[in-house]
Amino acid sequence: MQSFELLSQKFALHFDKRHFPEQPSSLYDPNEYFLKLGGKRIRPVLCLMGNELFDDIKEDAWFLGTAIELFHNFTLIHDDIMDKAPLRRGMETVHSKYGDSTALLAGDVMLVTAYEELNKIGVEQLKPILTLFNRTAKEVCEGQQLDMDFEKMDNVNMEAYINMITLKTSVALAASLQTGAILGGAGERNQHLLYDFGKKLGIAFQVQDDYLDAFGDPDKFGKQVGGDILSNKKTFLLLHALETATATQQKELKELLLVNSDDKIEKVLQIFRDCKVDEWALQLKNKYLDEAFNHLEDIAVLSKRKEPLKELAHFLIKREH
Amino acid sequence: MQSFELLSQKFALHFDKRHFPEQPSSLYDPNEYFLKLGGKRIRPVLCLMGNELFDDIKEDAWFLGTAIELFHNFTLIHDDIMDKAPLRRGMETVHSKYGDSTALLAGDVMLVTAYEELNKIGVEQLKPILTLFNRTAKEVCEGQQLDMDFEKMDNVNMEAYINMITLKTSVALAASLQTGAILGGAGERNQHLLYDFGKKLGIAFQVQDDYLDAFGDPDKFGKQVGGDILSNKKTFLLLHALETATATQQKELKELLLVNSDDKIEKVLQIFRDCKVDEWALQLKNKYLDEAFNHLEDIAVLSKRKEPLKELAHFLIKREH
Repeated sequence: MQSFELLSQKFALHFDKRHFPEQPSSLYDPNEYFLKLGGKRIRPVLCLMGNELFDDIKEDAWFLGTAIELFHNFTLIHDDIMDKAPLRRGMETVHSKYGDSTALLAGDVMLVTAYEELNKIGVEQLKPILTLFNRTAKEVCEGQQLDMDFEKMDNVNMEAYINMITLKTSVALAASLQTGAILGGAGERNQHLLYDFGKKLGIAFQVQDDYLDAFGDPDKFGKQVGGDILSNKKTFLLLHALETATATQQKELKELLLVNSDDKIEKVLQIFRDCKVDEWALQLKNKYLDEAFNHLEDIAVLSKRKEPLKELAHFLIKREH
Repeated sequence: MQSFELLSQKFALHFDKRHFPEQPSSLYDPNEYFLKLGGKRIRPVLCLMGNELFDDIKEDAWFLGTAIELFHNFTLIHDDIMDKAPLRRGMETVHSKYGDSTALLAGDVMLVTAYEELNKIGVEQLKPILTLFNRTAKEVCEGQQLDMDFEKMDNVNMEAYINMITLKTSVALAASLQTGAILGGAGERNQHLLYDFGKKLGIAFQVQDDYLDAFGDPDKFGKQVGGDILSNKKTFLLLHALETATATQQKELKELLLVNSDDKIEKVLQIFRDCKVDEWALQLKNKYLDEAFNHLEDIAVLSKRKEPLKELAHFLIKREH
């Protein structure tokens, strides 16, 4: 078995090539530009790890990983249009650089190209992989729509929010692992346990992301602390604060959301602390992380094979925070 | 063998159902709304006809036809965003009714749902059908991008324009026929002849469409004659006029394109007539129609089986114009 780091390097080498035809360059240059912006390629590596949990990595896993990464990039290009985001990874987004229409088409053709890669998979495993891939792709669209819906709503309950986060981000991680497991010849029960491991890990990661945005060490976090607060983003923290705050705190919090005063971040953080949102978030993260590890534990393979996935989980999610 | 009309009725019955989950309704209601606007469903019926040219219609042809129609509707939803079109079939477009972001996502999930339908096809024919479907989907995106590119260019040569039209509209008709033929068990040679029949027929249809927009009988045509001229749309007619006009006519034509004067349509039509663009267009249409029929003729099945396709071609393209 290979570590996440080693598989990342191998996948980066495999993925570092031209993925689109030369012509028409007005369509395909934007795609190549976007792929060259890089990324952590977590999903395809999860796919390779899902395969290797059960058997040696199959040639098809590289096609599958490529398809999964192309799919992820399709969602990023289209999400950036919807979010009117000017930058991604410090560089211009596709729609900023080439216009909305070309970005829309570039995303479309990226998705079709993902299906081209999938179609390279051996015929005996193509159908179950397509089934899971398609279901997941629909769920990711649903999650994005719900996210947009929630941004316009005053009250979003925690259950609905967790469902949205699961659809928008977790199921893709889970499906990357499970489709890899299918190639590795895993049985249904092991496949579903691995899927659930990925799903819970994804939620834990999102809780951590929200936590770090508010309470993280600015030097380590790498982006502005309080960014979510400034943009009134609905996060695990804000929703929990709104659910648990006293009437007075609720009133103050809602007033703070209305304007961007200089002390907004500071004051919102104080309410978060007063409501013990920080402690709650750490507990919630650990709850999902524990559940994830329990699912991994239950998978019927030698525990030595699980080491790389455990390491990855610990790398992604720090318990000490 | 069944006529286009009969197969249209049967497909309409098959397609008239809910295609998307109930929730989230903010994502799927727009899809259902758009499908309910109707349409001629030409592509799926071509698929059924392509199947029946070689053998009885297989159950898979209905899944394939559904996938093809969903794909077509995906392109329409996204094209309407790019064209900023307020109406389609006299009703609000998805982006007008639900906003650009939802229309973008609704199109995305429509495309994924097309692949869900494809995945219902028997495993032994899934791969070749996916291969052709994916290639065609990419070509349709390329055609749309080239169309947008050409709108911004002063000079587009006829060869490049025909290539764009082929990608944007003809290959989808051709692939509908060929994928049907694959299900019908056609050999490679017959498949490609049928593909070429569809491709040429599609170009002939587009030439006719451009011709009718300029020279059609307003009562029969159903939309404003001269619409393409008013919007300076690059058409077969305009490109040929620009290629063949005298220097004086070219100058006049280019001046006419700059403003929307009351007599713009009339004056452009006069130049078209002076350059004999109308006669040329009818000849071009007949040339492609003849080529289409030659391909159909060469297909090695009993000529009786070809009757429905011949009828359809004559229905779509009138020789008398």
